[in-house]
Amino acid sequence: MMPEDYDFINACYGRPVTRTPVWLMRQAGRYLPQYRKIRERVKFLELCKTPELAAEVTLQPVDALGVDAAILFSDILIPIEAMGQNLFYRPAPVLEPPVRTAADVEALRVLQPEQDVPFVLETIRLLRRELDGRVPLIGFGGAPFTLACYMVEGAGSRHFLALKRLMYQAPETYARLMDKITDTSIVYLRAQAEAGAQALQVFDSWGGILSPADYQRYVLPYSRRLLSALGDFGIPLIHFVKGAGAMLDLVAMAGGQVVGLDWCTSLNRARDILGNGMAVQGNLDPSVLLGAQDIIEREVRRILDENAGRPGHIFNLGHGILPEVPPENAAFLVDCVHRLTQS
Amino acid sequence: MMPEDYDFINACYGRPVTRTPVWLMRQAGRYLPQYRKIRERVKFLELCKTPELAAEVTLQPVDALGVDAAILFSDILIPIEAMGQNLFYRPAPVLEPPVRTAADVEALRVLQPEQDVPFVLETIRLLRRELDGRVPLIGFGGAPFTLACYMVEGAGSRHFLALKRLMYQAPETYARLMDKITDTSIVYLRAQAEAGAQALQVFDSWGGILSPADYQRYVLPYSRRLLSALGDFGIPLIHFVKGAGAMLDLVAMAGGQVVGLDWCTSLNRARDILGNGMAVQGNLDPSVLLGAQDIIEREVRRILDENAGRPGHIFNLGHGILPEVPPENAAFLVDCVHRLTQS
Repeated sequence: MMPEDYDFINACYGRPVTRTPVWLMRQAGRYLPQYRKIRERVKFLELCKTPELAAEVTLQPVDALGVDAAILFSDILIPIEAMGQNLFYRPAPVLEPPVRTAADVEALRVLQPEQDVPFVLETIRLLRRELDGRVPLIGFGGAPFTLACYMVEGAGSRHFLALKRLMYQAPETYARLMDKITDTSIVYLRAQAEAGAQALQVFDSWGGILSPADYQRYVLPYSRRLLSALGDFGIPLIHFVKGAGAMLDLVAMAGGQVVGLDWCTSLNRARDILGNGMAVQGNLDPSVLLGAQDIIEREVRRILDENAGRPGHIFNLGHGILPEVPPENAAFLVDCVHRLTQS
Repeated sequence: MMPEDYDFINACYGRPVTRTPVWLMRQAGRYLPQYRKIRERVKFLELCKTPELAAEVTLQPVDALGVDAAILFSDILIPIEAMGQNLFYRPAPVLEPPVRTAADVEALRVLQPEQDVPFVLETIRLLRRELDGRVPLIGFGGAPFTLACYMVEGAGSRHFLALKRLMYQAPETYARLMDKITDTSIVYLRAQAEAGAQALQVFDSWGGILSPADYQRYVLPYSRRLLSALGDFGIPLIHFVKGAGAMLDLVAMAGGQVVGLDWCTSLNRARDILGNGMAVQGNLDPSVLLGAQDIIEREVRRILDENAGRPGHIFNLGHGILPEVPPENAAFLVDCVHRLTQS
């Protein structure tokens, strides 16, 4: 298969497709009984670090749902462990000790992928062989700001006050930290592309906690540097900033071929703002998959109607699939998108 | 004092002001030592239900900060207790038992304000006497959707899946619940206005968890009915939907004179979308008040610059003030807004 044979890749570049491609963020995950079965005997971090098993769970939704892309099973915090913080899942992620001072930042190492995360690269190589051209493989990483949020807080957070204190009160330390994370993210995602990833997605889960002015000042320069350092592979770059519906123009300034959309913005308006040169991915409220199939179909039709046949549309959820979703509803969604867009 | 003597009231109607009025959501709260001192001996719910004490903490930030409006000290869940759920603070609010079925909805009563919440009305009457015209008094309530979120979940929630299940799977029960809450909110807020509230704010803390299409279908009709039932008092109505930066046009369709803005949207863009007929309130990231005063002043200047002298601007935070804020930073913010806009 060549890249131009894949609807997913073509949609990323705004080229014609046979039908609208669809995949689901966190499509390898707890809502699938076959995933839970593996997790009964293997902890999350061990699963990420065992290429045969990581490849197996990556393939599960490809087999079970018929999605148009596979995405590497891993976690955005994996490269942070190699930078020098200890990573635990209890079950929410914890990074110890939190990064708070200039000395903490200096002590961080920049990742050396082949040495520090060989299992990620091996999983990608294994997946390319096992997928054997069925669907393209997406690699991914966290955006520098989202990684900084976790590193400074030492965990998830409601208000991320430690991060904001650092940003406002020690802007030079903040900038040094963001530079170091950006350097790591660049080598990490370049290594994924070199190992065989056919597209790369940058997840900025927390970019939306800032005002547009702060996003522009404290986040955009780093995300732009990351995306532009990945531009020479000739593979699509997807940039997803959750909660950024009111600043999509700024998100687009970071670069890439595709902007990810959460569900709190209208796809129609997003496409008007982003223009025809930028593809979009996402937009279905993940909780819709809890509902009856007529509601799922209603919402799929609405989003397709809002897209109004514009090229460059990848169907996806607006955030990760919820563990409570019945797998048959996820399969119905994929079928529904394909059925309603088959040319 | 007549309404036209208050900058706050004039700003709500887009009339000329002597300087930009400013108040802070949750301005009576834990960041103030004088508030914490009262809370050492009185629990939160008892404080809400004791008019003398509720009035005292309402006045604290008026005295300490020089804000341009007082807001009734209370909680949006107070009228829910009278509808028949048990309300606890542990310290986050819990409503028991959660409302899940048609029978649960039928069992709910509609509030009778003078009988069920006399303490709220007495606090307002007391405050009007004690304020003696210094600043206007804002009353408030939760928007029907946000109240429904708490009532169905029985508590705050990350994804509000119980609420969304009800909305998607039992739309008639959902509609009946929303109608009953709207009826309660109408009589509750009307009673506040009759007791002397000089403006009313409707807080929709969770309206932003829905897609714009779902907001339009499941929320807007009820918020619009509530706001239009309050229109005959001739006092300003403020409607704040957190997380709604990408659907402000829909929020404006609910009515009122003022739209509240969180910090995740640009004030400039919001004003362009809303047009000159709608005043705006808010927009400063609450975490900015943790920072140095030069950052606070920088952000105040930026927001004032974005407003670009348009009438109908009330300065406020984009959400409640954080307990960690030094009171002197809150006072600095108020002074800063006044100093930079004094005509």
